Amino acid sequence: MASVLRCGSKLRTVARIPVHRTLSTTARLAATEKPFFPDEPAAPIVSTPIPGPKNKAAAAELDEVFDVRSLNMLADYYKSVGNYISDLDGNQLLDVYAQIASIPVGYNNPHLRKISQSDEMITSLINRPALGNFPSSDWSHILKTGILRAAPKGLDQVFTAMAGSDANETAYKAAFMYYRQLQRGGPDVEFTAEEIESSMNNQGPGSPQLSILSFKSAFHGRLFGSLSTTRSKPIHKMDIPAFDWPQATFPQLKYPLEDHVQENAAEEKRCLEEVERLIQEYHNPVAAVMVEPIQSEGGDNHASPAFFQGLRDITKRNKVLFIVDEVQTGVGATGKFWAHDHWNLSTPPDMVTFSKKAQTAGYYFGNPALRPNKPYRQFNTWMGDPSRALIFRGIIEEIERHDLVENTRTTGDYLYAGLERLAQKYPEHFQNLRGKNQGTFIAWDTPKRDQFLVKAKSVGVNIGGSGAQAVRLRPMLVFQKHHADILLESLEKTINLL
Amino acid sequence: MASVLRCGSKLRTVARIPVHRTLSTTARLAATEKPFFPDEPAAPIVSTPIPGPKNKAAAAELDEVFDVRSLNMLADYYKSVGNYISDLDGNQLLDVYAQIASIPVGYNNPHLRKISQSDEMITSLINRPALGNFPSSDWSHILKTGILRAAPKGLDQVFTAMAGSDANETAYKAAFMYYRQLQRGGPDVEFTAEEIESSMNNQGPGSPQLSILSFKSAFHGRLFGSLSTTRSKPIHKMDIPAFDWPQATFPQLKYPLEDHVQENAAEEKRCLEEVERLIQEYHNPVAAVMVEPIQSEGGDNHASPAFFQGLRDITKRNKVLFIVDEVQTGVGATGKFWAHDHWNLSTPPDMVTFSKKAQTAGYYFGNPALRPNKPYRQFNTWMGDPSRALIFRGIIEEIERHDLVENTRTTGDYLYAGLERLAQKYPEHFQNLRGKNQGTFIAWDTPKRDQFLVKAKSVGVNIGGSGAQAVRLRPMLVFQKHHADILLESLEKTINLL
Repeated sequence: MASVLRCGSKLRTVARIPVHRTLSTTARLAATEKPFFPDEPAAPIVSTPIPGPKNKAAAAELDEVFDVRSLNMLADYYKSVGNYISDLDGNQLLDVYAQIASIPVGYNNPHLRKISQSDEMITSLINRPALGNFPSSDWSHILKTGILRAAPKGLDQVFTAMAGSDANETAYKAAFMYYRQLQRGGPDVEFTAEEIESSMNNQGPGSPQLSILSFKSAFHGRLFGSLSTTRSKPIHKMDIPAFDWPQATFPQLKYPLEDHVQENAAEEKRCLEEVERLIQEYHNPVAAVMVEPIQSEGGDNHASPAFFQGLRDITKRNKVLFIVDEVQTGVGATGKFWAHDHWNLSTPPDMVTFSKKAQTAGYYFGNPALRPNKPYRQFNTWMGDPSRALIFRGIIEEIERHDLVENTRTTGDYLYAGLERLAQKYPEHFQNLRGKNQGTFIAWDTPKRDQFLVKAKSVGVNIGGSGAQAVRLRPMLVFQKHHADILLESLEKTINLL
Repeated sequence: MASVLRCGSKLRTVARIPVHRTLSTTARLAATEKPFFPDEPAAPIVSTPIPGPKNKAAAAELDEVFDVRSLNMLADYYKSVGNYISDLDGNQLLDVYAQIASIPVGYNNPHLRKISQSDEMITSLINRPALGNFPSSDWSHILKTGILRAAPKGLDQVFTAMAGSDANETAYKAAFMYYRQLQRGGPDVEFTAEEIESSMNNQGPGSPQLSILSFKSAFHGRLFGSLSTTRSKPIHKMDIPAFDWPQATFPQLKYPLEDHVQENAAEEKRCLEEVERLIQEYHNPVAAVMVEPIQSEGGDNHASPAFFQGLRDITKRNKVLFIVDEVQTGVGATGKFWAHDHWNLSTPPDMVTFSKKAQTAGYYFGNPALRPNKPYRQFNTWMGDPSRALIFRGIIEEIERHDLVENTRTTGDYLYAGLERLAQKYPEHFQNLRGKNQGTFIAWDTPKRDQFLVKAKSVGVNIGGSGAQAVRLRPMLVFQKHHADILLESLEKTINLL
């Protein structure tokens, strides 16, 4: 029979791993906070090896019709609750990966459940509109009370999309059209006959050889345009034709930051100079610079607010657009609603793209000239999905009601302090700890990373990696201090299993 | 006060346009059929000019935050029912455009409503999984009883996506990976160091200069890869960088077909020869040929089954993949579930892409070698949306229960016969009538097309155009003979308003 292992702050019927007193004390303190999900398990439940027998059988069945080689686990979403994901074998794991950073307010969130049962939701599910042609009469209201209620400062327009990749690609399209409009001399200058003809042959000047500048290790999606700006891993790019677009070096900071201030500043300066040089010299002119606030798939690479302000200055000076990809960083996880809120920019980004925790996607913009000069230039059949926009609205409501960005900020600080203690104790397992003052958007490097992720499951934690050797934490916004305690204990247990 | 105009077979309180006896007689006959939606209006209701005052005010409000220049009308989806779309001003139009051909079983379909209220739906809406990593335990069941229940003959696998563009682009990616795998000598040959390094720089051999061959006037989507195969209109392509990929001529058939048999056969032969020549000679090698069964956005351009069988033969002979884009033609509208079912191919297409009426998206395939040789090569966060897959399953159930493909076939034949009568009477307004034996997937050319579409609204019909001068009919699968009668009468009225 499989043993029942409950690890964490309260129930611990089988304690295979020594519990460390310091953390347990913290745990008892944190346990006094009011939980967002009273019906969550008090701690992870691991009752079989993971994957268990039912999971294996179900995966084999799925494999008949659907590629399962990237399968992490099959989940039972009926039983998942709050921060806990359930599998088919009765295991309930504390989930700090959260569907690749895309679940914001907990599994089976009651407020989202209510929204899903509403007339609005049902109507939008069964009468899916072509939003550019036949939006529902309340689309304006849904946008203003939802997607746009959360709009970054200075950006009051949105183009809606389906997911991160097409959000980014439609932003690129807007950038190219804007760039060419400036070159042409304004929105009223008509396309030439040569442009019209050549565009139909995929040749310039109608299909110009312009580019988007992105950064080494960046991830912006996996369709053809977005993949051309993605520079994360060969497995993402191999065999796929790509545009000849430039890449600049993203700062490679040294940790702890406070011990490498000069060095890191010099590194960022070097990278900024490279960006400006590429903008001025690259053979395919740069229409926009695309950057993540924290390179997420690429291994949680950070840069300072000064670096991003530098990018803003360079793009302004060189008349190219500055696009911030907040697909993974957005919607609260860094302790601000948008990660670029940390930067105090002199002027806002030209466009900000979003998806994941928003459960829908698109790009925000402010300058009206970023609406193309003619209709149907930026268009597709669905242009998003109102049912998912309703979910995002519910998420925003839930974030406001429970002050979840603030929760993430304070819980993140608490968690970071605990990780610093672990890093002191196990320096070889917690290298380059990063994400201080960035909410729960925290990562570190570890030598046996892949093994670490597998073992973490056996002590009840679902956790993800990124880059070559990073462990990345992506808890939900409803992750609280008592969860942080369980996580910290589990991390220590995991290390001791390696 | 706005007058109430009810046009069609039953109520006609204001008859501004003479009613033609032949059609009215047909109407009375057709009206005996059992309606799928008993609560539909008996005929369109037009009580204000379109757009009416409320519609105009709402559009102005939406314009503050969302580009409305492609707006056709704002809809009230609570009041829309079956084949009728309602606007804010109390107008109810017979909708033969159906959200750019994407609504299959009627507005506010009761079966879909029931599905939207199910536990399955609510759970999938509020616990959106990363399908490649953490699918729900019932994902296999949902696929097998839904998306794959409708799979084209010979294709039993699916990669799920969000919409038409990414369905097509992921199919292209699969084609490129497959092509390179053949070149390399099989799935077990490792990537070279040069491939790995060059892929990260968007250069060959890692990012090879391969191509997808598509056809002039084709439409396959508007993201960067799909747009490179789209050749519909300059407004779709202007200012957007594109890959140097080849385009072949799509047959330009002469109508009526029976009067141009030899000529059309010669045209198709010429086009096939061009395809083979491009495959053999184009400087960027062709990995796949992409084709729509009927070029839909490009103006409803048809070709014969022999042409498509020719394409299948050429692609086989030259070892390139044959991808059929059924995004607009699929799911019943042509009187077969898949339009390529009309062709009786000797072997199935290598991939078939779908979206629109499926309300979800993806590509079907059969050859297991089209699963890339390693995990995470074809991957993204969501890889579709189970809530939309549940809707597609409901659509398939509804199609089966009411035999809606057969309904579309017979109603299409009935409608086509009526259009032939109109074409005889008004030859200048109904040129190149096409789509015979293709269900309700019918179009014709008309000289004052844009004006025609606007005027059609005033007599109670929402209808779309495509290409330069085509009127395209895209009724739902629940469009019946009595709707056809109303449509035929309305078309005649519209002509008389021009």
